[in-house]
Formats: sequence, structure tokens, C-alpha cells
Amino acid sequence: MPRVTFDAAGSLLFQPYDVRGMRLENRVVLPAMVTRLSGEDGVVNDAIVDRYVRYATGEPGLMVVEAMAVHSAKSGPLLRASSSEFVPGLRRLTDACRAVSPTKTAAQIIHFLKIARSGWRQKVQDLTAEDLDRIVDDYGDTAARIREAGFDAVELHMAHAYTLSSFLSRYNTRRDGYGGRSIENRLRLPSRVLRRVRERVGDDYPIGIRYDGEEAIKDGYSVGEATAIAQRFATLGADYLSISAGGKFEDAVQTKGEPLYPYTGYSGDRCMPNVHYPDGLNVYLADGIRSGLRQRGLETPVVAAGKIRTPEFAEAILRDERADLIGMARQLLADPDWPRKVREGRSDAVVPCVYNNVCKALDERFHRVRCTLWRKGDLHAPPLPDDNSAPTWPTDARLQLDEQDGAIVLDWTRAEDAGEVYGYMVERGEGERWLHVDSARGSAHRFRDVSAIGGVDYRYRVIAYDLAGNRSEPLGPESIRIGDEHA
Amino acid sequence: MPRVTFDAAGSLLFQPYDVRGMRLENRVVLPAMVTRLSGEDGVVNDAIVDRYVRYATGEPGLMVVEAMAVHSAKSGPLLRASSSEFVPGLRRLTDACRAVSPTKTAAQIIHFLKIARSGWRQKVQDLTAEDLDRIVDDYGDTAARIREAGFDAVELHMAHAYTLSSFLSRYNTRRDGYGGRSIENRLRLPSRVLRRVRERVGDDYPIGIRYDGEEAIKDGYSVGEATAIAQRFATLGADYLSISAGGKFEDAVQTKGEPLYPYTGYSGDRCMPNVHYPDGLNVYLADGIRSGLRQRGLETPVVAAGKIRTPEFAEAILRDERADLIGMARQLLADPDWPRKVREGRSDAVVPCVYNNVCKALDERFHRVRCTLWRKGDLHAPPLPDDNSAPTWPTDARLQLDEQDGAIVLDWTRAEDAGEVYGYMVERGEGERWLHVDSARGSAHRFRDVSAIGGVDYRYRVIAYDLAGNRSEPLGPESIRIGDEHA
Repeated sequence: MPRVTFDAAGSLLFQPYDVRGMRLENRVVLPAMVTRLSGEDGVVNDAIVDRYVRYATGEPGLMVVEAMAVHSAKSGPLLRASSSEFVPGLRRLTDACRAVSPTKTAAQIIHFLKIARSGWRQKVQDLTAEDLDRIVDDYGDTAARIREAGFDAVELHMAHAYTLSSFLSRYNTRRDGYGGRSIENRLRLPSRVLRRVRERVGDDYPIGIRYDGEEAIKDGYSVGEATAIAQRFATLGADYLSISAGGKFEDAVQTKGEPLYPYTGYSGDRCMPNVHYPDGLNVYLADGIRSGLRQRGLETPVVAAGKIRTPEFAEAILRDERADLIGMARQLLADPDWPRKVREGRSDAVVPCVYNNVCKALDERFHRVRCTLWRKGDLHAPPLPDDNSAPTWPTDARLQLDEQDGAIVLDWTRAEDAGEVYGYMVERGEGERWLHVDSARGSAHRFRDVSAIGGVDYRYRVIAYDLAGNRSEPLGPESIRIGDEHA
Repeated sequence: MPRVTFDAAGSLLFQPYDVRGMRLENRVVLPAMVTRLSGEDGVVNDAIVDRYVRYATGEPGLMVVEAMAVHSAKSGPLLRASSSEFVPGLRRLTDACRAVSPTKTAAQIIHFLKIARSGWRQKVQDLTAEDLDRIVDDYGDTAARIREAGFDAVELHMAHAYTLSSFLSRYNTRRDGYGGRSIENRLRLPSRVLRRVRERVGDDYPIGIRYDGEEAIKDGYSVGEATAIAQRFATLGADYLSISAGGKFEDAVQTKGEPLYPYTGYSGDRCMPNVHYPDGLNVYLADGIRSGLRQRGLETPVVAAGKIRTPEFAEAILRDERADLIGMARQLLADPDWPRKVREGRSDAVVPCVYNNVCKALDERFHRVRCTLWRKGDLHAPPLPDDNSAPTWPTDARLQLDEQDGAIVLDWTRAEDAGEVYGYMVERGEGERWLHVDSARGSAHRFRDVSAIGGVDYRYRVIAYDLAGNRSEPLGPESIRIGDEHA
């Protein structure tokens, strides 16, 4: 069957991009994602190195290594860069990544406030003037260590539920010139941090900032104030602005006896949108902020993120000048080889993310973050084997469709492969197109579609794929129509 | 000064549109907005008639009269159509509107569940099979009364926190085939209602449906399921789908001793986005749903709504085929003459909504809903007088700018007018453009801009306008730069 693949050579997505002298080979950015692979000591270990080497092998333009603390506060398994003792480990990480890939590496650095299992949490209003000075010092010192450790850039975490984001927030009610309704006041500490970091890393070192384009909580800020924030950061010489959304404590759901997890409310949905949300639902934030900057003559690049998974959509965002760089987190967790595969004209070999947020649930419980599509027990995405033979279906293979309690249940025969069947993609016919609705790991053979309505013919097919990304012929299509009347 | 106005003659916005034989003279739709002008008896009174006659005078294509209950449950000041005794009042309303305007009228009909001041609320899971039959009967009977009362169409309220929306919701956990994960099951009652209404009103009568394109609550549905819902409604012969968002009980904030108001959480922000949110933030919902329908060969018109205020933006949405009709609620409350003014090439005479949601706060407290820009004490937008003379500034008029606690404070001399100065528009220079940032009633002369950052030159000007929409020359521009360092 003919396969249409993305034309990387003619794309913007695979054009190099310069960020203050840091040359990105393409415009794919891996945003910071906590792995929970580090110990409580916050030191780089083998698992951490392996994870980022695996990402680097896929060759995104920029890879942002997960948040590391600028201070010595503990927070479960989280990297730290709060003193010089952490530098050798971080150096090992950057060396290992550079050895395998042209991918540039940034380190995200974070300050967070205290939370307790009782539900109590420290707020920005609780900080003294000395605390603020200390935060500025810690960011500056840590940024210098990041440069020393060999990272190509440093990224300041000002998003979600963390300290600097909470200063930017409309929930910051400090009355000392560092909070309140005025955006200038809420910008005061983040501005001091950015200035200090610039002093410490020098004029030739890229500084990125990740922050929320919208708080996605009642009475929170959105594009209007986010654009004023961007203007300040751009004026102070930030080198890219990576736009996230939500992830706030204010609407988080407390689980008794557990520390509050800031991705459990709707703002958490908006930060890591699940299967129910449309692709690119946060792109309007990057778009609005970017056009606000350009109107003011500021050229700082803007990174869009949030359920961007196909090269065609990523390219359209760039062509329409809605963003300059494309962030892709969970899709690169599912398949770190996305950039290489797409660049090499094999975008049909990508393992698509299913956005069921098992990775998020693992993070919440401090478990090591994995993808539900990886082989059971694997700690990282398996390497790409050299294999050109696609999975095949046994001659008596069947795709069976049944109605069950208002839903459609698919059951299929397992496929065969010279190596190993890595997974199955379930596709549903929508008019002329086949839409990917879910995937299952190679050991599975069932799917329940709860999004079908009665009285309409639905067509399904299942495609098996192996570790190298080879795909079987589709099994099916088979059709079914469920009833639309009950009792 | 030269004024660029919208070219209505060449626009899609002012092309007529046919909805099952109901000819709309233009594509502006007034969505249903509760007025709190009725008594607890739910009977149409003079204030209600005056309010809708005032809207009709502005000549939107379609005007949806506020929700009226299909059942006899009381809910403060809310219209009712739950028995034949309400028909004469409703007939008086439709007659009065038809006498002054070609605007078509629809009546929105609603079923809601019980809520108590204690915080308790009835849920869809509490309803018996007989209750469901009764809801179907009530909708059918009421729709027939709506037709009898002279409305041109009936609109079924399936949005926000009300009964049918709660059936569509992913929070509907009924296990009897009317709820649960399957969208077909959650559609079962709304589908029965739509079929019954069609039986009762006949094949030549338009039926609209208003529902949420996204619940905007944690784990709620979004465009994916909203498209399946649209497909069902379209297949069953709904004549337009009016897309709202949020407005749910699940994230509402309880005020002790008050009934829960479903617009107090983030989902309430998304339903009635305030000044902080960008224009048209919910258009992607209408867009996604519409394109899903068109892919399936269904031509049902889709209404977009949510902070659409300028004719240029409305026209762009239509041209880009993101929606077929434009909903505009708070902007038409602020200035019911928007459609006429724009059609007559006087779009610069529109009184722009400031989206400060004073109207929403009045609704929440069961107070009569007014606009903050109307003259103090007026119960409706004042009529347009015949007046061609614009307000003028006294020769010593001044616009003064000061810095105060990180914000910029504007203070201006009051303008003069042969009749009356109705209000002032505050505009801020952004590059080449002047952006409307707020307005003040004619009696005011101050504005505080908290969205400015330090170290940047800001320009402001103030324009006075009278009741006829005549505008003064701008006072200013004046410039200011506030500091970006503190202490």
C-alpha cells in the first residue's frame, strides 16, 4: 500500500535554528519531564544517563533535562544542582549525550516551596525579603554550575505550581512590591532572577524560560498578562520562551496523607492533556504571546507544546508563524526516535503516543516514569533494531467487533514477527480517513471504544508493529453498528 | 480623523442564513442570557418585554430568549413555560419583538435538578426511570407551547450544569444504559428528548441545541466526544448547534448558606471569559465540532461564542469556516445596537464590552442583570437618540498619568456634550495600534492599568462617546514609563 510520509527536506521543522549561538539541528524540543529515576540524593545515576542518552539518540534539536533543584530542600526523587558536589554527575550526563548525538542539552532549574502531607503548603506570601535574596542567589549559583557541567543552555522553571510561577500568578497577594494586582510587581522576583542568571552565565550563554501562558484556574492570568511577562523576559535577554499551561496547586485534589500533586485538577489536564482533549489545545497561548512580542519588535523564539504529535501539525504551526519551536514531551517518551524517523522519511514508523497519562500517574506516585507502550519491565524505550521484516497476520487471523454496554469491543488475533510484535494500533474509519484511536502493547489483543454512537456504521482496522517500526498490513476493516435505543 | 469601518455589504456576517425555513437576516445570534427580570412566578412581565424589544431593535439575526423551565420546580426569578398559563405572556413577548424588528426569536427551554443552600444537590444518578420519562414529556409539551406562543424556534438547553448537560457529562455514572463511560449511553436521554420535541413541534419548525463543546473540568469531555454528540444531534435533525463551554457544578465554589452557582470555578471563567482571557478562546470547540460534522457529510450549522466582539473577528471566523453563526452575549448586553451599527457602517459607534463580568455577578446574586456601562439606574440599554454632535473636551482638558504601586493610574478631565456624555474608552498604544483596554461610565474619570510593566513607554488616550455613539477626538496621547526596580 502507498505510504505518504512527511517531506523533511522541504520542511521548516528540520531547518536548523540558532539560539544565541547554540545551533539546534531541528526545531523539535523535548521539554523537561520528571523521570523519578534519581534517588532521594538528587545525584545523576546510570538510569538517568541511560534515559537521556536514549532521548539524544533520537536527535531532537534541543533536549531539556528534567528539573533540578537550586536549593537543598528535598522533594522525593528529584535531581539537584544545588552545590558543586552535583557537577561531576551532571557533567557525566552531558558528556554521554554529546557523545552520541548532535542534540543540544539544556538543564531546567527549579525552586519550589514546601508542602506537607497534612495538606499545608508554603505560599509566596510566607517568604521574607531574605528568602527572596536567597532565591536569587541560588538561581544564579546554580546556573553557573549548569554551565560548568557542560550543558548548552539553562532553562529557568517559572511554570506550574513552583515558586517563580507562584510569583507571576494572580494568586500572589504579597503587598511589598513583589505581588498583588500589578503585573510589574509580580514580575519583580522573576526579573531579578533572570538578571542574576545572566550576570552569572555571561552574555554568550542561552537562557530559556518555561512559564504558563495561562494559569487555567479560576481568576488566573491568560494571554494578556502572559504577553506582558514575555515582553519583560525578552527585554531582559531571555533566549527562548517555552509556553506551558496550568499545573497549579489551587485546583489540585488532595489525597489524604499524600503531598498535594499539582496536576490533579483541570489545570493539570490542561498541562498534560489526555486523550479527550484535541491536539494542540494550548497552541493559541504560544501564538498570542509570540504575536504580542513581534508587534513590539521583539524576536525571542517561542516554543509551543501540548499534544502536538504529528509532523504535519508541527509543520503547520511553524508555517503559520504560531510558534518558532515545537515542544513534544509524551510523544518523545513513547518514541524517542520520532525526530530521526520523521527526518528520514519514516514518519509512518513512529509509535504514536496514546495520551492515557500512565506516565503522569507514575510521576504522581513517585514511581519511575515509563511509557505504557514499552515492553513490560523495560526501563527505557527499547533501541531500534536493524530489521526490515514487518509483522504478519496468521492466515486465520480475525478482527472481531461486538457491542457491550453501549460500547464497541474489538478483539483480534495476535500477529507474528521474526523478532517481536511491539504493539498494535487501532484505527477507526472517519469518512475517507483512518484515525488512530488507541494502541496496545504487543501482549494485548483487546480494545473498548466508548466514544461510538449508535445508528452509525463504524469501521475498524488493527495494525501490528515491531520494534524497528515496521508495520503489518491492516487486519480488517470490519464494520459494526450499535443500537441507539435502550430498553 | 479617518475612520475605517467594517464593510457589511461585502461580508458573510450580514448575509441572510436559512435554518429550516427560518430566515435570519444576518448571522449574529444573541445567546440566551438570564435577566433576573422575571418574578418568582416565572411569568413574562413588562421589564422582560422591554429588555427583548430593546435587543430586537438592534436587529440580530436570531435572538434566543432566556431559559424557561419545562417543569414547575422553582429557581428564584426564572421564566417558565411549564404549563399553558404561561403562553399568553410569552405570546405578548414574541408579538412585541416581531412588531419592531425582523429578528427571529427562539425560546431556550431548560430542565434543572434541585440544589439546596446546604450544598446538597440532586444528581442524575438520583433520577428514576419514571423521572426520565417525565423529563421527556415535559420537554415535548413545553416545546409545543413555545411554538404556540409564536416563537420562531425552540432551543434545548443541554449546556452547563443543567440536567441534560449532566447526562452528557463524563461525571454521569448511571449504570442503567443512561450513563457511564459510553457516550451512546450518556446520549440516550438527550436523544429521547430531541426525538420527542421533533414529534411535538413538527417537521417544519427549527430546533436548536446549546451544549458544551468542552466541560472544562478535570477529566471532563472535550472536542472528541462533543463531536460524537453533534453527530447524533445532527442525525436526529437538530437545526443548529450552539457551542458553549464549562459552567459546571463540579468545580463551583460553595458560598456558605447560598445555593451553589455553577459559574464560580474555572469552568465558569471559560463559560463567560473575563477581561484576562483572549478573544474567541472557545472558537476551537465550534471549529472542531463543525469540521467533524462536515467530514461525516452533515451540514448542521454551528454557532461559535465566547468573547467575540469585533465585526472583523466575527467575519474571519465565518470566512475561515470555523463556524456558521456568531454568538454574542455580553457585547449585545453592553450595546444591543451592535448589529445595526455595524451593518450601517458605523462600527466605530459600538460601545465595546469591557468583560468585567458585573453582569455575571448580578445574575449570581439573583439581582436584575444590567451592564456596568449603562447609565446609573437604567434598567435597559438607553435608546439611540437622533444626535450627530460628538462630545468635546474643554480647552484646558488634560489626561494625567501617574505611577502608583506598580500600576499606571489615568485621570482625565470630563468631556462635554450637547446631550450627555455616556462613557469614556481608554486606549493603549501597542506598536502602531490602539488597543481598547477598558471603558468607564460617563460619571467616571479614572482608570488603573495593572497590566503594564516597567521600563517600557506606554501611551494612552481617552475617547468620550455619547448615547448616539458619536465619539470625541482623543484626549492625549500621553506617555509614561514606570520603574522596573523596587527598593
